[in-house]
Amino acid sequence: MQDRTYPEFSTRYPLLVTTLMKRPVSLYPEQIGVVYRNHVSGEYTRLTWAGWHERVCRLANALRGPLAVSPGQPPRLGDRVGTLAFNTHRHLELYYAVPGIGATLHAVNIRLSPEHITYTIRHAQDRVLFVDDIVLPLLEGIWDKVSDVVRTVVYMSDKPGLPDTRIPNLIHYEDLLAAQPPEHEWAYLDEDTNATLCYTTGTTGLPKGATFTHRQLYLMTLHILAAQNMSNTPAHISREHLGENAVPMLNTPLFHAHGWGAPFFCVFSAQKIVLPGSFTVKGFCELVQTERVTSVSVVPTIAAMLLEYPQLHEYDLSSLTRVGVGGGALPLGLKTKLEKLLPSFQVSSGYGMTESAPAAVNAFVKKHMVDWGKERLDGVLVKTGVPMPGLEVQVVDEAGKPVARDGASIGEIVMRGPWITEKYYDNPEKTAEVWYDGWFHTGDIATVDADGFIVIADRIKDVIRSGAEMVPTVLLENLIAMADFVLEATVVGAPDPVWGERPLALVRLRPGHDAGATDVVDFLFEHGVQTGRITKWMVPRLITLTDDIPRTSVGKFNKKAVRDRIDEYVAQAVDVSEHVGKTQG
Amino acid sequence: MQDRTYPEFSTRYPLLVTTLMKRPVSLYPEQIGVVYRNHVSGEYTRLTWAGWHERVCRLANALRGPLAVSPGQPPRLGDRVGTLAFNTHRHLELYYAVPGIGATLHAVNIRLSPEHITYTIRHAQDRVLFVDDIVLPLLEGIWDKVSDVVRTVVYMSDKPGLPDTRIPNLIHYEDLLAAQPPEHEWAYLDEDTNATLCYTTGTTGLPKGATFTHRQLYLMTLHILAAQNMSNTPAHISREHLGENAVPMLNTPLFHAHGWGAPFFCVFSAQKIVLPGSFTVKGFCELVQTERVTSVSVVPTIAAMLLEYPQLHEYDLSSLTRVGVGGGALPLGLKTKLEKLLPSFQVSSGYGMTESAPAAVNAFVKKHMVDWGKERLDGVLVKTGVPMPGLEVQVVDEAGKPVARDGASIGEIVMRGPWITEKYYDNPEKTAEVWYDGWFHTGDIATVDADGFIVIADRIKDVIRSGAEMVPTVLLENLIAMADFVLEATVVGAPDPVWGERPLALVRLRPGHDAGATDVVDFLFEHGVQTGRITKWMVPRLITLTDDIPRTSVGKFNKKAVRDRIDEYVAQAVDVSEHVGKTQG
Repeated sequence: MQDRTYPEFSTRYPLLVTTLMKRPVSLYPEQIGVVYRNHVSGEYTRLTWAGWHERVCRLANALRGPLAVSPGQPPRLGDRVGTLAFNTHRHLELYYAVPGIGATLHAVNIRLSPEHITYTIRHAQDRVLFVDDIVLPLLEGIWDKVSDVVRTVVYMSDKPGLPDTRIPNLIHYEDLLAAQPPEHEWAYLDEDTNATLCYTTGTTGLPKGATFTHRQLYLMTLHILAAQNMSNTPAHISREHLGENAVPMLNTPLFHAHGWGAPFFCVFSAQKIVLPGSFTVKGFCELVQTERVTSVSVVPTIAAMLLEYPQLHEYDLSSLTRVGVGGGALPLGLKTKLEKLLPSFQVSSGYGMTESAPAAVNAFVKKHMVDWGKERLDGVLVKTGVPMPGLEVQVVDEAGKPVARDGASIGEIVMRGPWITEKYYDNPEKTAEVWYDGWFHTGDIATVDADGFIVIADRIKDVIRSGAEMVPTVLLENLIAMADFVLEATVVGAPDPVWGERPLALVRLRPGHDAGATDVVDFLFEHGVQTGRITKWMVPRLITLTDDIPRTSVGKFNKKAVRDRIDEYVAQAVDVSEHVGKTQG
Repeated sequence: MQDRTYPEFSTRYPLLVTTLMKRPVSLYPEQIGVVYRNHVSGEYTRLTWAGWHERVCRLANALRGPLAVSPGQPPRLGDRVGTLAFNTHRHLELYYAVPGIGATLHAVNIRLSPEHITYTIRHAQDRVLFVDDIVLPLLEGIWDKVSDVVRTVVYMSDKPGLPDTRIPNLIHYEDLLAAQPPEHEWAYLDEDTNATLCYTTGTTGLPKGATFTHRQLYLMTLHILAAQNMSNTPAHISREHLGENAVPMLNTPLFHAHGWGAPFFCVFSAQKIVLPGSFTVKGFCELVQTERVTSVSVVPTIAAMLLEYPQLHEYDLSSLTRVGVGGGALPLGLKTKLEKLLPSFQVSSGYGMTESAPAAVNAFVKKHMVDWGKERLDGVLVKTGVPMPGLEVQVVDEAGKPVARDGASIGEIVMRGPWITEKYYDNPEKTAEVWYDGWFHTGDIATVDADGFIVIADRIKDVIRSGAEMVPTVLLENLIAMADFVLEATVVGAPDPVWGERPLALVRLRPGHDAGATDVVDFLFEHGVQTGRITKWMVPRLITLTDDIPRTSVGKFNKKAVRDRIDEYVAQAVDVSEHVGKTQG
C-alpha cells in the first residue's frame, strides 16, 4: 500500500453543508446556539449547540429509517423533502438533516397562491412534507391535489398530540425524534449531491425550481464570510454584527432563497441564532430585548410597521447595532425616523435572486470612501454595490458586450460562478431561456458607474418602451420614494396612442401628508432632472395617488397585476402633462 | 440546444488561483497595489494593480511562448518552474503567472544547503529557473549539477543588462516581458491542476515536495478570510490589519510554505502589498514609514533585531497596528519591550506546516474571552489555538482515538481537509509514512485543553523518552523562554545509563543578564511545577548556558545537529540534580 493517497480527504475533500454545522457543535457544545420564540403562544425554546445537533442527528436517523428517504447520487437527486414552515428551530434542523443524508430540501414558499403551492409540491414530487401546526389548514386545503405524490406528513408543533385532520397517518415531529438514537455519522457525500430546490415566485408564470448542490451552498457561505472580512469598515459602522458574539435574528423566511444565506453563514460563525417564527412587531421587540439581538435584516414595510408600534418605547432595543434594510428603496422619511430610534442603524442594499442562492451583488465601501461622512456614505450604500468576490457579474448590451461604466448606459445583468444554479429542476426549456452563451441571464436591467457599482434599473419585462426609448421604472420608483411625503411608489407603462407606452406612477402617501400629483412632479424635477439622474421626458405624465397597489407573495409590488388593472388606474390618475410642460428641467 | 446547461460556469465552476488576482484588478486598477523595495539598493518599484497585472499577463505569454512551458492535465503535473528569489514584485508575478498557465511553481528554498537545493531542483525537474541577481552566485555554484535538467535561466534584476556568468543563454526578465503582448486570456483550468510544489526543509532527511492544486490554494485562502471574519475581536485589538485598507508587509519568504498564504489572501483582499526583498532592519523601518504599513508577521529573532536597532527612534512606526509574532515562543522580556515601542502590538500564535499549505491551527478568542484584559488574553493567544474552520484536526493516542481535553494527555496531531497536501511529488514511500488510516500524520505532539486549544508539546522524533515517560521538550522550551533573563532555549535528550535519556537544556541568556543554571531551575519550579504545567521529574538536571546553538535554514533550532554534538554540550553542562532534589515542587 505504499502508493496509497487519500484524495477524498485532501484534494477532493468534499465541500458539504454538514461541515458548517460541525464547527459550533465542536467549539461551543454547552452554549445556547438556537433560540426560537413561537409567535402565536409567545413560548421560548432554547437549545445548546450539542442539544440542537442531537436533534439534527435524530432527524437524520428518522429520515433514513422510518421515513425511508433515499439519498441521491449525482446527477440524480435524492428524494425531495418539503417543508411548510416558518422560522423555527425545527426548520433549521431540517436545513441540515435533509441535505446531510443526501436528500433534497424543498422549503415550500407558503406565501404563494394555493395553486402554485400545489404545483411546486407536485413538480418537486415531495415524498415527505414537514408542516407547522399553524400551516396545517393550508395543507388540508390542497391535500386532495397532492396526496398521490406525498407519502408521509410530519406535524411540527410545540404542543404534544395530533390534531383532528383528514390527512392520514400524521406523525408528530417530536415523537419521531424521540424514537431515534441521538447520534448520526454524517456521510462524506459527493459534494455535487443536490442539497436544495428553491422555487421562484413565478409572478409571470409557473414557479421554477432552482437546484443547488452542497458544494454550491458551502462556497456561497465561504464567499459571504470572506466578503464581510474584506470590506472596509468606516469608523461609524460597527462590526459587532459580525463574528461569534453577534446575535442575529432571522426575519427573512427560510423558504425565501435560503433565508438569504443566514442559516448557513450564521451557523458556521457559531453565532447565537434567534428565530421568530413569522414576523410580528411584538415578537421582534421582545426577542431583541430578551436575547440582546445585535443584527436584523428587514424590508422597508417591516421597518414602517415597527415605527408605528405604540408600545415600541417600552422595549430596550439598545443591543441592535445593525439593522440592514433590503428588498426595496428606503423612503427618506423612514430612514430619518429609524436613525432617531436606532443611532447605529445602517442602510445597506444588496441584489440577488433565488437562482443566485441568493448572494450576487452587495453594498460595499471602497477604499477611498472609508473617511466619508455618514450621509455621503449612505448614498453609496443604497445603490446596490459590487459583485460578490469569486462571482463574475457583468452588465451587457444586446451584443453581450459590457456596457460603459458611465452610470447611464443600460444593459442586462448576467452572471456565472460557483453558486449560480445550474438548472431548473426538470425544466430544460426554462433553463435554456436563462443559460446561454456561457452566462446566466437575470432579466434585470442595470447601469454601472465609474466605481463599478451596479445600479438596478428595471426588470426587462417591466421596462416601459416609450417611443424609441426605454424608461427605467425602478430608478423612477426609488426617486419618488425619497420624497418625505411618499411611503412607496411603483411605475408601470400605460398604453399611449402616440408613444406606445407612457409611464404611470402609482404613489402611496405617508399618513398625515396631503401632497398632490404636482408635488411628485416637482420633487422629480428637483431631485431627478436637475441632478442628472433622469431626463425630463422620463417624468410620468400620469400620477395616481392610491393605497391600493397589489403585491406579490414576498411583499413586492406585483406589476403584472397592476398592468391587468391598468384601465382602472389610468381612470384614477391625474394628468400632469401641463405642469410638466411648464416646469424647467 | 434546449437542454444546454453550463456546469463549468455553475456547479463545477473551477476554483482557481487566477480568480484571486482578478478582484483587485477589477476594483482598483489605477491604485498602487504592489510596492517593492530592493533591500540592496534601497530603490522602490511601485505598481498599480493594472500595471502589475499587465506584467503577469506578459509573463504568462512568455511562459507559453518562448519559454515553451507546458501546462498539466490532472493527475499529470505541468512543467515545473523554479524560482530562486526573495520577496519581490517579480516573485509575486511568478506566483500567479506560472499556476495561471497550468504549470507548477517551485519556489526553491534558497536557505537550504547547496546539496539540498540541488536535490530539490533535480527532483522537481525544474525546466526553467527564475533567479534574483543577488542569488545568481548560488546558482552558479551548483550549475554543473543541475544544467542537464534546467533548460532556461531567467535573470531578475532592477538593472538592465546581463552579468558575466558561466550559465549559458541567460535571459533578462524585463526583456522577456517587454517582448510580449500585455494581455492574456486566463484559461478556465481544471481546478485539480497542480499549482505549486513546496519542499520541506528536510532537517532529518532529504526534502520532500508537497503538492498543491489550484482548488486547494483557493480554498485555503477563502477559509483564512472566513476565519478572520468569524473570530471575536476584543475591544483592545484593532481590526485595521484586515480589510482593504490594511497595508501588509510580507516578511515571510515566499519560498516558505506559500509565504504563510499572504500572496493569496492579501491579493484577494485588494490590500496594498509591501515587499521588502529580504528582511533588513533598515528596510523594515523605512517601509513602515513610507508605505504606512499596518501589519507584519515576524519571528522572535527578527523582533529582537528590531529592538536593538540604534536608529529605531528616527522612524515613524505609528501606522503599525498589528505585529504578529509566530514561529517560536516569545520571551517575556521581548514582549514587554515590544509593547512599550508599539502600543498596539499583539502576540498571536499559529501552527502549520508546509504540508498544510500552511494554515492549520490559529490563535483564537473564544466568546467568553472577549471581555478579558490584555494580559489574560495574551496567555490564550500564545497557546497556538483552534483548528481552522473547515479543517479536521485531532490529537490522537497511539490507537488513533482523540485524547482527553484535559491539557495533559499527549497525542499526535493528525489532520485532513480541503487544503492538506495529497502527496509528496514522486515519493510514494514518504507519502505512505504520513498518510494512513485516512489521516495525515504530522509527527507533532500536543495536548488539548478544555477550551479545545491545541498546545504543541513536541516533535515525535524530538520527544525525550525518560524511563517509561515522555518529556515534552517544546513545553519546557517555551516555559524557560518566559524567564526575563532568557533569550531562547532548547531541550534535547542526553544519554543516561539509568533512564535511557534525561533532558538537557541549552539556554541562551539575554545580553546583560548573568543568571545561572539554578535560576533556570527555580524559574521552572515557580512557573512550571507549582502551576501544574509540568511535573518535577521533567525538570532538566543538565543545563548548558551557551550562545552556540545550531539552527536550521528557517531559523529554528536544529535539534538533530545538537544531538550530533551532544557530548560536547554535556561536557559544558552544569549538573543541577542536587538543587532540583532539594527544591519543593
